[in-house]
Amino acid sequence: MSLSSREIRLKSRPLGAPTADNFELAEVTVSDPGPGEVQVKNQWMTVDPYMRGRMSDRKSYVPPFQIGEALQGGAIGEVVASNAPGFAPGDTVSSMFGWREAFNAPAAALQKLDTRGLPPQAFLGVAGMTGLTAYVGLIKIAALKPGDVVFVSAAAGAVGSVVCQIAKLHGHTVIGSAGGAEKVAFLKHIGVDAAIDYKAEPDLTAALAKAAPNGIDVYFDNVGGDHLNAALAVANKSARFALCGMISQYNSATGPVGPSNLILAVGKCLRLEGFIVSNHFDLMPDYLDHLAGWIKAGQIKWNESVEDGIERAPAAFLKLFSGENMGKMLVKLG
Amino acid sequence: MSLSSREIRLKSRPLGAPTADNFELAEVTVSDPGPGEVQVKNQWMTVDPYMRGRMSDRKSYVPPFQIGEALQGGAIGEVVASNAPGFAPGDTVSSMFGWREAFNAPAAALQKLDTRGLPPQAFLGVAGMTGLTAYVGLIKIAALKPGDVVFVSAAAGAVGSVVCQIAKLHGHTVIGSAGGAEKVAFLKHIGVDAAIDYKAEPDLTAALAKAAPNGIDVYFDNVGGDHLNAALAVANKSARFALCGMISQYNSATGPVGPSNLILAVGKCLRLEGFIVSNHFDLMPDYLDHLAGWIKAGQIKWNESVEDGIERAPAAFLKLFSGENMGKMLVKLG
Repeated sequence: MSLSSREIRLKSRPLGAPTADNFELAEVTVSDPGPGEVQVKNQWMTVDPYMRGRMSDRKSYVPPFQIGEALQGGAIGEVVASNAPGFAPGDTVSSMFGWREAFNAPAAALQKLDTRGLPPQAFLGVAGMTGLTAYVGLIKIAALKPGDVVFVSAAAGAVGSVVCQIAKLHGHTVIGSAGGAEKVAFLKHIGVDAAIDYKAEPDLTAALAKAAPNGIDVYFDNVGGDHLNAALAVANKSARFALCGMISQYNSATGPVGPSNLILAVGKCLRLEGFIVSNHFDLMPDYLDHLAGWIKAGQIKWNESVEDGIERAPAAFLKLFSGENMGKMLVKLG
Repeated sequence: MSLSSREIRLKSRPLGAPTADNFELAEVTVSDPGPGEVQVKNQWMTVDPYMRGRMSDRKSYVPPFQIGEALQGGAIGEVVASNAPGFAPGDTVSSMFGWREAFNAPAAALQKLDTRGLPPQAFLGVAGMTGLTAYVGLIKIAALKPGDVVFVSAAAGAVGSVVCQIAKLHGHTVIGSAGGAEKVAFLKHIGVDAAIDYKAEPDLTAALAKAAPNGIDVYFDNVGGDHLNAALAVANKSARFALCGMISQYNSATGPVGPSNLILAVGKCLRLEGFIVSNHFDLMPDYLDHLAGWIKAGQIKWNESVEDGIERAPAAFLKLFSGENMGKMLVKLG
C-alpha cells in the first residue's frame, strides 16, 4: 500500500539558536514495502536537545543531518504492512525514523514494543532513552553511593525529573534547578528537597550553597555554563559529575564558554565524566525492571508537553531551548 | 644547641603573578630541642607550583600560608641533635619544614630516610612526592591501558618528565609539550615520540593533532588553559584526563578561563579527574619498588635546576612560573 507522508527536512543549518526558518515541511509518497521491509505509520515522535548538535556540520558522536533531507529521531508507530517475519499489522514499534508521518524500513531497524500496559509514548521518555539516560548517568557514571547529596540541572526536564526521582527513591537529598515557578512547583511535586529557580537567582552559586549547606557529592549536568560553575564551587571533595548535556552552550554563535573554576577539580579531586546513552543500552533491561516496580508502586511521575501534528515538530523542538516545555517534549502524529 | 636560622616568610599575598616583593628573609634563633623533639639542619628544599595556591587567602585542600610567617614545603635535612628515640645526629630526614635553614620538630613530623644510594635531594623529586604524583596520575587516575597514546603538558618539568618516562617504560606512544628548544631536546633525550614546543606553535590544537594523528587516549594535565583545550579537541572516545595542576591559570589576576570546548566531554565520553598526591601515599612503596628497578637498569633520567642558599628560594619559586627551570627546581641549603 502506498501512502502519503509529510516530513520535516533541514532547510538550513542554524547559526546560534535555531529558528523556524531552518526547517521545511515536505510531502513524499511512501511506496509499498519491499521484501524484508515493514511499513509503519508513526504515532509519536520525540524532539531532544542533542538533535541540535546534528544540525551543525561538525564531527560528533552521530553524523550531522543533511540539508534537504528528513531529520531523524526516536518515534513510536504502528505497523500497517509487513513483508518481514515477526512484524504484523497492528504491532507497535519503536524506531529512529521520527520527523515523518510514515516510512518503510528493514525489520532490523525496528524494535517491536511490549508496552507492559504503559502508554506507547512513555517509550520515548521515562521508559525509553530518556529514562535510561537518567539511570545510567546517576547509577553508573556518577556512581551514586549512600549519603550523596545530588544536584540536578534542568531538573524539571525529561531527563532531570527522572534523575531527581531515582535519587529520591534511593534515599538521597536532592537539589533541583529549573526556570520559573511552574517548574519549581513540579520539582516540589516530585519530592526534591530543595528547588532553585535559576531565573530568579542573581547568583546561582550562592543559591546552590544555601540549598546545599553541606555541599554536593553528585552533579547531573544537563546545562553546562553557570550551573557547571556553581556545581564546581559547591562540590565536596571527591564529588562526581555526570556530564549528560550542556544545553546552555548549544546555540552560542560566539562559541561556548568553559567553567572558569575548573581548576577546583584538582584540589577537590573531582571526577567529571561525559556519557552518551547509546553506549549503555545493555542496562535497559535492568532499568526497565526497576521502573516497572516504581510505576506499579506509584513512585514515579512524569510530565509530557505535547504538540499536535508533524507541522508542529519544529515548534516543539524550539521550545526545548526557550525552556517552555515541562517534562518530555513530544509530537503526536497518529 | 641553639642555632641561627634564616627563613623565608610571606610578606604579602600575590595578586596575579608572584614577585620577589611578596617574600622577606628573616633570621631567627632555633633553641635547644625540647623533650621528644629533634633538631634538623636542612640540606635541600623544594619549590613547587602548588605553593602558589597556599599564598592566596582562600579555602583549598591545604590551608593558606599566613603573612609574616615562614612558608612551608618539602625539605631534606640532617639531624644535629635529638631528644627523641629513633633519631640520632647524622640521620637524614624528610619533613615539610622547608623555606628555612634549621628547625626543631616533634619526631612524628619527621620521616627518617633510607636513601638507597640515591642523592638525598632525589627524595624531593623523582623518588618523592613529585615522582609519586606522576605514577598515581598515570596509573591510577588515568588508568593507563595497553595501546593508549599519552599526551603530557609541562613534559620537561619535574612531574611531566617522570610521566613521560613511566609511559614509555610501559610501551606507550608519548607526546610531550614544553616551551623552548632546550626543553624539547630534553624530551627527545628521555625518549618521547613527539615533542611540541608550544611557544613556537601558533595553533596548539593543530600541532597536537599533527603529533597524534590517531588522537590521544590519556592526557596528563599540568597546565590547563590552551593545553587542556587542545587535549579535549584531539581526545579519542573514552579518553581519560588526569588533572594534576593548571599552572597557566594560577597567576591570573583577572580570573582563570575554562576550556571552551569542555562540551566535547559529553559526546566523546571523556573522564576528567583531579587528584592530589597526598591522598595516595599508600602507593609510595609500590612506586619506589618500581623506581628502584628502573634506576638500577638506567631506564629513568631526571633533571635538576638548583639555586644556592635560602635567600635564593623566592627566585627559585618564581622561575617555576617563568618556565626557566628544567626538571625539578630545588634550593640547596646545606
